[in-house]
Amino acid sequence: MTVIYQNILIIGGGLIGSSLARGARVRGLAGHIAMSDKSAEVCARLKDLGLADRVESNTVSLCADADLIIMAVPTGAIAPLAAAIIPAMKAGATLTDVCSVKGAVVDAVTPLLRGDIHFVPGHPIAGTENSGPDAGFSELFHERWCILCPDDESASAALNLQKFWEGLGSQVAFMPAARHDVVLAATSHVPHLLAFTLVGTAVDMETVTNNEVVKFSAGGFRDFTRIAASDPVMWRDVFLTNQDAVLEVVDRFIEDLSALKRAIRWGDGEQLFKHFEKTRDIRRRIIDAGQDTAEPNFGRDGEG
Amino acid sequence: MTVIYQNILIIGGGLIGSSLARGARVRGLAGHIAMSDKSAEVCARLKDLGLADRVESNTVSLCADADLIIMAVPTGAIAPLAAAIIPAMKAGATLTDVCSVKGAVVDAVTPLLRGDIHFVPGHPIAGTENSGPDAGFSELFHERWCILCPDDESASAALNLQKFWEGLGSQVAFMPAARHDVVLAATSHVPHLLAFTLVGTAVDMETVTNNEVVKFSAGGFRDFTRIAASDPVMWRDVFLTNQDAVLEVVDRFIEDLSALKRAIRWGDGEQLFKHFEKTRDIRRRIIDAGQDTAEPNFGRDGEG
Repeated sequence: MTVIYQNILIIGGGLIGSSLARGARVRGLAGHIAMSDKSAEVCARLKDLGLADRVESNTVSLCADADLIIMAVPTGAIAPLAAAIIPAMKAGATLTDVCSVKGAVVDAVTPLLRGDIHFVPGHPIAGTENSGPDAGFSELFHERWCILCPDDESASAALNLQKFWEGLGSQVAFMPAARHDVVLAATSHVPHLLAFTLVGTAVDMETVTNNEVVKFSAGGFRDFTRIAASDPVMWRDVFLTNQDAVLEVVDRFIEDLSALKRAIRWGDGEQLFKHFEKTRDIRRRIIDAGQDTAEPNFGRDGEG
Repeated sequence: MTVIYQNILIIGGGLIGSSLARGARVRGLAGHIAMSDKSAEVCARLKDLGLADRVESNTVSLCADADLIIMAVPTGAIAPLAAAIIPAMKAGATLTDVCSVKGAVVDAVTPLLRGDIHFVPGHPIAGTENSGPDAGFSELFHERWCILCPDDESASAALNLQKFWEGLGSQVAFMPAARHDVVLAATSHVPHLLAFTLVGTAVDMETVTNNEVVKFSAGGFRDFTRIAASDPVMWRDVFLTNQDAVLEVVDRFIEDLSALKRAIRWGDGEQLFKHFEKTRDIRRRIIDAGQDTAEPNFGRDGEG
């Protein structure tokens, strides 16, 4: 594959950062890969894993050489990080991020920007429930979507960044940050909130032991525990920085849940059936779009 | 393996019934397997698939020979079915079911029972989002739990039924029907209700298109669409027949969700973090108990 950026710097050696380093290396998208992490332990692990050409805990010292800097850190860490690195960036370089919330990142970074660098907010719709440098893998972004939210100034820099994500196997969609935050509230943030909530509810029930919850989880509960095992810092920051959109979707959800509760209480089988039938079609479309496996139970039980 | 029952009759050729037939055949648990289904089309398919030694749409005609009759039909179909078959059963035979709700099944069947047959309510905690005779497979029950709810009269018949389920690869737990319904409300029924609800909410939102929901579903939403694709008739019946336990868990869930909503609205990051951290441990325990894969994303994206 073609080198898209001569020098890239990935800040943050977690699931996303370490997957980016692996993917860029395997697919030959960068001439030189530098990485940094605020944790000395993570830096040591990145070195052991050999994920980058250079690893330093002093992030600022790595900035001057980079043509692309990717901030792969939780949303809450963006503002101080951007304030530290932007003054050290090379003229003409591109800055991006991978946070799950875009409005708050734009608000944090925009006042710090210089006229001679390009900021392209980004968000790959990919991940697993695992965290840390060992959790990453080169194909994490393959066949997944990446959303970029450039403004007029950064539109041409975004075309180059698009090539980088396409090189990782992703498809790229462009949309304004505010729209991103509404769409992701429905497709990611609220699903996670419901999973975190339900797992907590089940764990706290006095009428059901935790042993029973574990043993009989294959009836549906285990699915929720996967996303409820995701990084708590990252998810705290998502909810703190995408309040409005999350609360709007949660309120709609509670309205719909109340309607189904009422149908259950009054024994309205027809309403339940109608609702349950309409939700089948969207699964089929997700499978047809290549966004999930058609294997029953996600193929995890080795059926067939 | 040892034959546990000379003659078994499986009524209902769906996911569960057809998996039972396949599993009993592969593992040599029955001398002779008969099946029936109220749908002529399903009966024809069962014959084509060669899943049983004998397939008849006239269920009652098959009862006299059976040592074990398994009612693998939705909860709502149990009462009329039991009324039809119990008078035709052989003395000493065992009757069981596989419904996700046990109290309602006991209430429906008990008044119809004869003194010379044994009724052991049962529920295998296993399934997929797919339905019908082609969806079944012999290993569906392997390493899953099966709950049996015998009373004093049927306790010894239940020991034989336990061997049958163990022969299919399951572990068997005994508990009263009422307790089963509370435990399953938390571990299966409410998770399904939330998934059905959320998928409906997302599909109905005017601010997010269905195309966007499909494209960006890998952020969490796709997990919910799997269980929201489950059989609508079966799930309608579950909610109609386990009202009290389901509504109690739903109310607890809504309380907990409201508390997290409030933390989001007030920007209480500490409360969110604390909650999100406590839900990680249960995932680990489920994996350790062999009830889910440790592979990230359920292994479906071919990582690693």
